[in-house]
Amino acid sequence: MSNDRVEIVEVGLRDGLQNEPSPVAPDRRANWFNRLVDAGLRRIEAGSFVSPKWVPQMANTDQVLGAIRRRDGVTAEVLVPNDQGLHLSLENGADVISVFTAASESFNRKNINCSIEQSIERFRPVVAGARSAGKPVRAYVSCVVGCPYEGPIQPGQVADVVEQLMALGVDEVSLGDTIGVARPREIHRLLDAVMPLVATDRLALHCHDTRGQAIANIHAALERGIRTFDSAVAGLGGCPYAHGATGNVATEDVLYLLAGEGLETGVDLNAVAALGNDICNRLNRANPSRVGRALAPSP
Amino acid sequence: MSNDRVEIVEVGLRDGLQNEPSPVAPDRRANWFNRLVDAGLRRIEAGSFVSPKWVPQMANTDQVLGAIRRRDGVTAEVLVPNDQGLHLSLENGADVISVFTAASESFNRKNINCSIEQSIERFRPVVAGARSAGKPVRAYVSCVVGCPYEGPIQPGQVADVVEQLMALGVDEVSLGDTIGVARPREIHRLLDAVMPLVATDRLALHCHDTRGQAIANIHAALERGIRTFDSAVAGLGGCPYAHGATGNVATEDVLYLLAGEGLETGVDLNAVAALGNDICNRLNRANPSRVGRALAPSP
Repeated sequence: MSNDRVEIVEVGLRDGLQNEPSPVAPDRRANWFNRLVDAGLRRIEAGSFVSPKWVPQMANTDQVLGAIRRRDGVTAEVLVPNDQGLHLSLENGADVISVFTAASESFNRKNINCSIEQSIERFRPVVAGARSAGKPVRAYVSCVVGCPYEGPIQPGQVADVVEQLMALGVDEVSLGDTIGVARPREIHRLLDAVMPLVATDRLALHCHDTRGQAIANIHAALERGIRTFDSAVAGLGGCPYAHGATGNVATEDVLYLLAGEGLETGVDLNAVAALGNDICNRLNRANPSRVGRALAPSP
Repeated sequence: MSNDRVEIVEVGLRDGLQNEPSPVAPDRRANWFNRLVDAGLRRIEAGSFVSPKWVPQMANTDQVLGAIRRRDGVTAEVLVPNDQGLHLSLENGADVISVFTAASESFNRKNINCSIEQSIERFRPVVAGARSAGKPVRAYVSCVVGCPYEGPIQPGQVADVVEQLMALGVDEVSLGDTIGVARPREIHRLLDAVMPLVATDRLALHCHDTRGQAIANIHAALERGIRTFDSAVAGLGGCPYAHGATGNVATEDVLYLLAGEGLETGVDLNAVAALGNDICNRLNRANPSRVGRALAPSP
């Protein structure tokens, strides 16, 4: 990985849409996936195989995977909670398997009803199965700076979880500021604790822009050599103007930053912005991406 | 100035309100000024003495100045275009006099109908008059990174203007990214050009958050030692969700950053956020401050 190349992991169609109020039909999700590919994105979350009872927005991810155009160098990434999810993912041609836990015990218990340790035990067979099928495994760690139940999370707690994940054999760890409380100094402290444990090109930062600090946090991580960032077209995920909104940082805003810093992504910002505005019109929501709004056609 | 103390220049009641569609009555502007003082802000723009024909939102700034509570250590700052504005400011008890020009010839011509050189000649007597009245002078330089008419602005152009302003005897220069196009690398390049010409404690950065980069830009300037930043409560100025919105960076978002970086402002974030939400309710507008929304009471 060249040092001036940055990889965006586009999470809008999974982490984004799973937090939007209305489900989107699978053919439309596939269409949006294809437009993201056309815009130059290479790593794109296609959905998840979790129970539609819990996350109705992700129902029919198999149909999304069936309808997307495949292209060399583009990976369709899928979140799975267990072995059954892994099998469905492999059957339907997912390219990267993602598992998830949190750095906060309370968040893990409320979110997936088990301890951090139990969650890691639970996806031990998922990681093994994915690897024996030749699929890379990404692990999401939520609440790496703050937790809605516990407050501040110490970097050492995150490091403990990351160490266990690496020992399990995951290929990449995505550090998530799930509730968007981090600021650059906290990102630096987090990276101080985690970077000694993981090769830099196996680390990703996943920012939510709840307090408007995401771009500054990404810039801080860039200064430390991190080159993989999760973001969502149109900042999907979380009602952007409601109380407690916790939307993902917008891909458009990240691309604008990266272009200014002289970093390459291979992604066409204008194409992503056009898609973001189309998605917002379709979902009848405001566009929280400031770059997306600045690039929107005049009314 | 201690290195861990940051001064916020609150510009919402002038640079903010002058770009909001509806004028606000002077007694209400004075009330908001007083609440900003109560929140701990020490440098606050109270208005401007420009023609109400051109900027009706700033009419009756004399009444604002007459109605605000005076407190030691708090300065009421006023923008003036000419000698007449200076006399009105002094008569009405302004503490700091601000003049303005731009680093872009085209912007200056469209905005104030004269060249950069003419604008500087025009406020030469204003600076002299303010200084002989014992009032500090702040100079705003607009379009320090980009111009809506000329595109990118070279740092050397800004340095030329800054050099002339310092020669004229201004006490402080506020570098304005008026259209919110800057990114951290551009801020570093700008500061590379300007910092050799001015003592660091006489420089301020004035960011608009049009493309979501303001907090990252402020963080970059903090790393260079800049300790004065302009911002507006509730990101006043420019319709926040409209096309081409160019609102100021929100004071709330800046305060949140600064607290995380361990920098002191003496300002109570919660009090500013409460005022910001009140102002947005009064103006019947959405609150573009993400921190302001995160801190808003549950509906």
